[in-house]
Amino acid sequence: MTQFSKEVMHVGEMASGAALTVPVYRLKGEGNAPSVYIQANMHGAEVQGNAVIFQLLELLRNTNIKGDITLVPYANPVGCNHKNGEYTLGRFDPITGVNWNRMYHFDESIIKPFVRDSIGKDDKTIEANFKAIMINSIEQKLDHNIFGLTTGQRIAYQLQRLAHQADLVLDLHTGPISSKHLYCPEYAIESAKYFDIPHTLLIPNEFDGALDEATFCPWWKLEQAFAELGIKFSISSAHLNKESFTVELGSQEQIDLDVALEDAKSILSYLQYKNVIDTNEYQPQKLTRYACYLKDYKAFYSPMGGMVDYLAEFGKPLKAGEPLARILRMDNYHFEEKGEADPLHYVSLDQEVIPILHFASASVNQGTELYKVFTNFFILEE
Amino acid sequence: MTQFSKEVMHVGEMASGAALTVPVYRLKGEGNAPSVYIQANMHGAEVQGNAVIFQLLELLRNTNIKGDITLVPYANPVGCNHKNGEYTLGRFDPITGVNWNRMYHFDESIIKPFVRDSIGKDDKTIEANFKAIMINSIEQKLDHNIFGLTTGQRIAYQLQRLAHQADLVLDLHTGPISSKHLYCPEYAIESAKYFDIPHTLLIPNEFDGALDEATFCPWWKLEQAFAELGIKFSISSAHLNKESFTVELGSQEQIDLDVALEDAKSILSYLQYKNVIDTNEYQPQKLTRYACYLKDYKAFYSPMGGMVDYLAEFGKPLKAGEPLARILRMDNYHFEEKGEADPLHYVSLDQEVIPILHFASASVNQGTELYKVFTNFFILEE
Amino acid sequence: MTQFSKEVMHVGEMASGAALTVPVYRLKGEGNAPSVYIQANMHGAEVQGNAVIFQLLELLRNTNIKGDITLVPYANPVGCNHKNGEYTLGRFDPITGVNWNRMYHFDESIIKPFVRDSIGKDDKTIEANFKAIMINSIEQKLDHNIFGLTTGQRIAYQLQRLAHQADLVLDLHTGPISSKHLYCPEYAIESAKYFDIPHTLLIPNEFDGALDEATFCPWWKLEQAFAELGIKFSISSAHLNKESFTVELGSQEQIDLDVALEDAKSILSYLQYKNVIDTNEYQPQKLTRYACYLKDYKAFYSPMGGMVDYLAEFGKPLKAGEPLARILRMDNYHFEEKGEADPLHYVSLDQEVIPILHFASASVNQGTELYKVFTNFFILEE
Amino acid sequence: MTQFSKEVMHVGEMASGAALTVPVYRLKGEGNAPSVYIQANMHGAEVQGNAVIFQLLELLRNTNIKGDITLVPYANPVGCNHKNGEYTLGRFDPITGVNWNRMYHFDESIIKPFVRDSIGKDDKTIEANFKAIMINSIEQKLDHNIFGLTTGQRIAYQLQRLAHQADLVLDLHTGPISSKHLYCPEYAIESAKYFDIPHTLLIPNEFDGALDEATFCPWWKLEQAFAELGIKFSISSAHLNKESFTVELGSQEQIDLDVALEDAKSILSYLQYKNVIDTNEYQPQKLTRYACYLKDYKAFYSPMGGMVDYLAEFGKPLKAGEPLARILRMDNYHFEEKGEADPLHYVSLDQEVIPILHFASASVNQGTELYKVFTNFFILEE
Repeated sequence: MTQFSKEVMHVGEMASGAALTVPVYRLKGEGNAPSVYIQANMHGAEVQGNAVIFQLLELLRNTNIKGDITLVPYANPVGCNHKNGEYTLGRFDPITGVNWNRMYHFDESIIKPFVRDSIGKDDKTIEANFKAIMINSIEQKLDHNIFGLTTGQRIAYQLQRLAHQADLVLDLHTGPISSKHLYCPEYAIESAKYFDIPHTLLIPNEFDGALDEATFCPWWKLEQAFAELGIKFSISSAHLNKESFTVELGSQEQIDLDVALEDAKSILSYLQYKNVIDTNEYQPQKLTRYACYLKDYKAFYSPMGGMVDYLAEFGKPLKAGEPLARILRMDNYHFEEKGEADPLHYVSLDQEVIPILHFASASVNQGTELYKVFTNFFILEE
Repeated sequence: MTQFSKEVMHVGEMASGAALTVPVYRLKGEGNAPSVYIQANMHGAEVQGNAVIFQLLELLRNTNIKGDITLVPYANPVGCNHKNGEYTLGRFDPITGVNWNRMYHFDESIIKPFVRDSIGKDDKTIEANFKAIMINSIEQKLDHNIFGLTTGQRIAYQLQRLAHQADLVLDLHTGPISSKHLYCPEYAIESAKYFDIPHTLLIPNEFDGALDEATFCPWWKLEQAFAELGIKFSISSAHLNKESFTVELGSQEQIDLDVALEDAKSILSYLQYKNVIDTNEYQPQKLTRYACYLKDYKAFYSPMGGMVDYLAEFGKPLKAGEPLARILRMDNYHFEEKGEADPLHYVSLDQEVIPILHFASASVNQGTELYKVFTNFFILEE
Repeated sequence: MTQFSKEVMHVGEMASGAALTVPVYRLKGEGNAPSVYIQANMHGAEVQGNAVIFQLLELLRNTNIKGDITLVPYANPVGCNHKNGEYTLGRFDPITGVNWNRMYHFDESIIKPFVRDSIGKDDKTIEANFKAIMINSIEQKLDHNIFGLTTGQRIAYQLQRLAHQADLVLDLHTGPISSKHLYCPEYAIESAKYFDIPHTLLIPNEFDGALDEATFCPWWKLEQAFAELGIKFSISSAHLNKESFTVELGSQEQIDLDVALEDAKSILSYLQYKNVIDTNEYQPQKLTRYACYLKDYKAFYSPMGGMVDYLAEFGKPLKAGEPLARILRMDNYHFEEKGEADPLHYVSLDQEVIPILHFASASVNQGTELYKVFTNFFILEE
Repeated sequence: MTQFSKEVMHVGEMASGAALTVPVYRLKGEGNAPSVYIQANMHGAEVQGNAVIFQLLELLRNTNIKGDITLVPYANPVGCNHKNGEYTLGRFDPITGVNWNRMYHFDESIIKPFVRDSIGKDDKTIEANFKAIMINSIEQKLDHNIFGLTTGQRIAYQLQRLAHQADLVLDLHTGPISSKHLYCPEYAIESAKYFDIPHTLLIPNEFDGALDEATFCPWWKLEQAFAELGIKFSISSAHLNKESFTVELGSQEQIDLDVALEDAKSILSYLQYKNVIDTNEYQPQKLTRYACYLKDYKAFYSPMGGMVDYLAEFGKPLKAGEPLARILRMDNYHFEEKGEADPLHYVSLDQEVIPILHFASASVNQGTELYKVFTNFFILEE
């Protein structure tokens, strides 16, 4: 039976002295295979990933595991307990406004000297040294900063220290009200086909503070730095195999254990493809898979204040000119005529898009992010 | 064609001096019929009533109207524009915590002297005098208070001044995530059958600050005070006809104009029954209608903190012992055994109930209101 | 040396499973003297009481203690860790809006049957029985409620269970920006002179949900119920001695350990007067002490929105017509003339008052509570 | 007498349709002198700048004005009306968390082509053309973006459009609890001596989204781009004279009209130095002025959760090792011994600093920004 352990990681403390803790579950792999790090609930309202980790643990109880797997639910104990009214404050530190998923660390200046020192070494040595240097860099930040760390950095860096020890990293998120979609580094596009997720965002080699970027960008930069010297160091090769994904599971503020079981199987399909688990039970579904590049993933901001009846269905192409939403403005009702002051306004775009998610509330200000859509999308697999 | 007018009511001002305004739409009736007051969105997140008012106006454009109808969307301009994170702060003044729908006014001490003065007068005179005294009482509060009014009182009293001018009052609300249900004074139970709403709460003659109570309790107390003197003054009689309802339209944070059209028709079915509109187009649907008394409408508070997969369907009887929800506690996962620390907890009640609504978020603290349920319910109509 | 013990009381749990705990410090008295319960920080932003408990413990280390003393800092672990922006959400449950200090319990219906059963018993037996019945009543609420308790009730009832075991109860609060003042039951007016607090509010025998009321009202009602039967049972007598106070220490969001030392000494002056401690070190300061009845303690709500320059000093009589504040409205500046649109508005009252506290922010809406003032005040001691 | 005009600028609308407006006051200069733009209250809680604008208008009524002056109080109508509990949400959009003062626009790519096109033109022509191109760039963002703008961008860009029309820009802010300090571009260091502000932060030519940067960085970059071609275009010369400052007036959530008068005089001292006003009434105070570079302005994050007694005085050097604050942890009190669990923790730094501001609340989490301090500071003027 799978070797299992649990620890409680101390990531901070509140004004009353209450400890902020995160549970860490570890499954010991019994072979030579990539190791995996999966976390959930970095954004407070995005809870479904916890249910997916539950179902993963239930499924993995009776699975032969070759690579080590670390699972971290409730990754952000401030966020997941922070209520404002009935809802959970989703995305940012309530004191500072900083997005909880923009606080990870990557100092690109470590790459060049590391490459110089590594010339002539074999891939496995380079890999081990680079892991060590990344972990050391995080530990320096955690322990040797006389001016201290923000609350969010202290949490993020401790999670990142765990993530750097793994080869494959999955950060489980959700949208506000959302279809399932996957953030995937451009070089890992083939892996996207193993998740039961019909929409893939291809992201470039640019660090913007998120966990997926913090874990794949260093390796990708490393590969590029070697390539500039004419040295091949392929992080996509089977013996290195560094991949990170942000998995958007659907809508926030919801737990559905049945859907979570499907999502857990989708993740196991990917892990089986990567030989982390020793089974052939989990096959990806046949799906039409759409993709677009991150630069083409557009937020559409409301052109007016009002109350929104969201019309566009998620996940399938919406023709140019077809309405995304109709916005009600009951301060503008006129009985005698219709026209400029009509209280119903239809909003649409002049190009074909795939709606992926929309805002969590019907009430929007002028400038609230109404929808996020794929533009210039293409079919990855049919 | 229906006579229509619109005004903008000034109900307060913000720190920057920005005016808080509420649009008031009036339709002029052309006959001798009860007058109607309908408002929506007193709680910030409960927006669907605005869409119902839109559909009512659309339907009433071409309807013969006998009684005056006043419609007030966006009744609470503080609440409906107040965001905390992505959601609208629902239920209370963000500064004081006071529920926006507990600020209306009724001073019961006006009843006894009024009754003494009214002995021997005819019903219509009494009605006119009592309306006047109620409106005067509100205007005293609005205009002659050296220590001032709270922000919420100033809004509520101005709405109440409009509502007191009508015979029939509908306050459009929603639950958090909710089925449709109706708060109905006990004496008006027959009217409940004309709404397309399968669940009715029967409320007693006790003022607790809400608009429906603030408008029907005075009349009911008046009827009772006359009755104590052996004088019949029936507010249910066709020539007096005082009724107030809080109409719970479904879930908050949502606008659905198609559903709003159905709800508008349901309200017109009631208004047709009351002869406010001159048509026979609007008939109530055949529904199994359940009712319970307010004292039997129970909130069930979560026995633990956790993340909730809500299981019980709304609106139909749930047998004793059947699960309402299962609560996930991923800090408690154990691999080797199951038992006391099992991360999934099922919660149920030991009596049959009808679940009516549940909390808006999957994340709950110990003691968060998980469900509200009818107990000791009965069938009003089948 | 004083006998000291500490325990950690579990009062709830958050969505992540994080335990809500409260530290409870107990000092064992060595004589026949009243027992004492002191708590702080029930409202999240009102933190100074924690510092006062710190200083009390420092002073009591070397004091002979006759009555048992229980001290509870951080009484509300939800409130004291709840940030919205940079500030601590002060007064209410962020989910429901219910004031944390309106959730205590008193069921007056227990009084009459208890009195009937107690006729002929001696005071000490009655006292012991009544304590038992009050504690039992709370424990019933805590443990035997199939529909559960709210988050705030679960916290409040556990604190109340501790408080009922004491004779003297002090609940340490602060105002927003505030002078020191004391809520004192009318019958305990003499005790008010032993605190170094110049303003006393005399409160009647009416339960409104606060801890002081929840602990003195039952005894006062009991005294009255006996009195109605012509039986003397005096809770002010030295051998019964039931008193409860809400001590308002100054302004919220501030810790000042030096001021806390003064406040600790003021509390010890009271405890010395009550023979709880065996010393004569602590004498009340000579102060002009003002008092008013609770009905004369008035909130003054802003007559307009704007930005407030608070002018009136706390704690000394302000003549009728003297300005409380001037309110700036920069949207109304006119260069050519002054007059109706003058951007500076002075607000005053037409009676003499003593300003006690004002709102925490300069930005107010029309209807925000601007000041709280004593009206019809009188001098308690000069 | 000074020519005065007022307009109301529409910067957005809320869900109810309520317009978001900003008052704009313009004073017409009567000579050849730099024009000035001054705004206040971009961060909701930072209200004192409105009072300073009031006092500026009062003083300028009777002053000969040579350059045009535009004054904008209440610059952010969302922020300044947004309450969470009693306080105003200070720094960020409550929906997105984005800092309101990081949303201005500067597209550096306009510089190089502009410089190429400007070779051989005179300074005044270049200046006029560059103003035009900056304003055009903002107007493109405002009016021609098919995916729309965020709520904050729409506000910021409209303010920025006004600011670009001026030569001298002052953005009035405050700290949380704070001394007065000034953000000053490095090249404008001489001007810092004309404000009555003892602490100056020298900021480099890097755009980070704030208004001061958005208005001086383009000019500085332009000067540098010309310099690279060996062409002198000095924005510090009397005939160009482009300067922008963020003026931190003290603490947030406070209006003090008397202090505002002093601050208005300090600003007039600067404007007199710049020949904007025709008077010699306003002379800077004799002050010891300290400065440090932005890279040396350090935030010190709390090493622990707790309740803070802030000890360090603002504005004067604090020796290495001297305490900044003591942090109370009442969950850790021990009676018998002192030592590791001592509830009082002193925090200090191992270098000399000048404390400039501290956090707004006594309650801090581990990682909350406790103090901001000048390190490596130097004396600008004695």
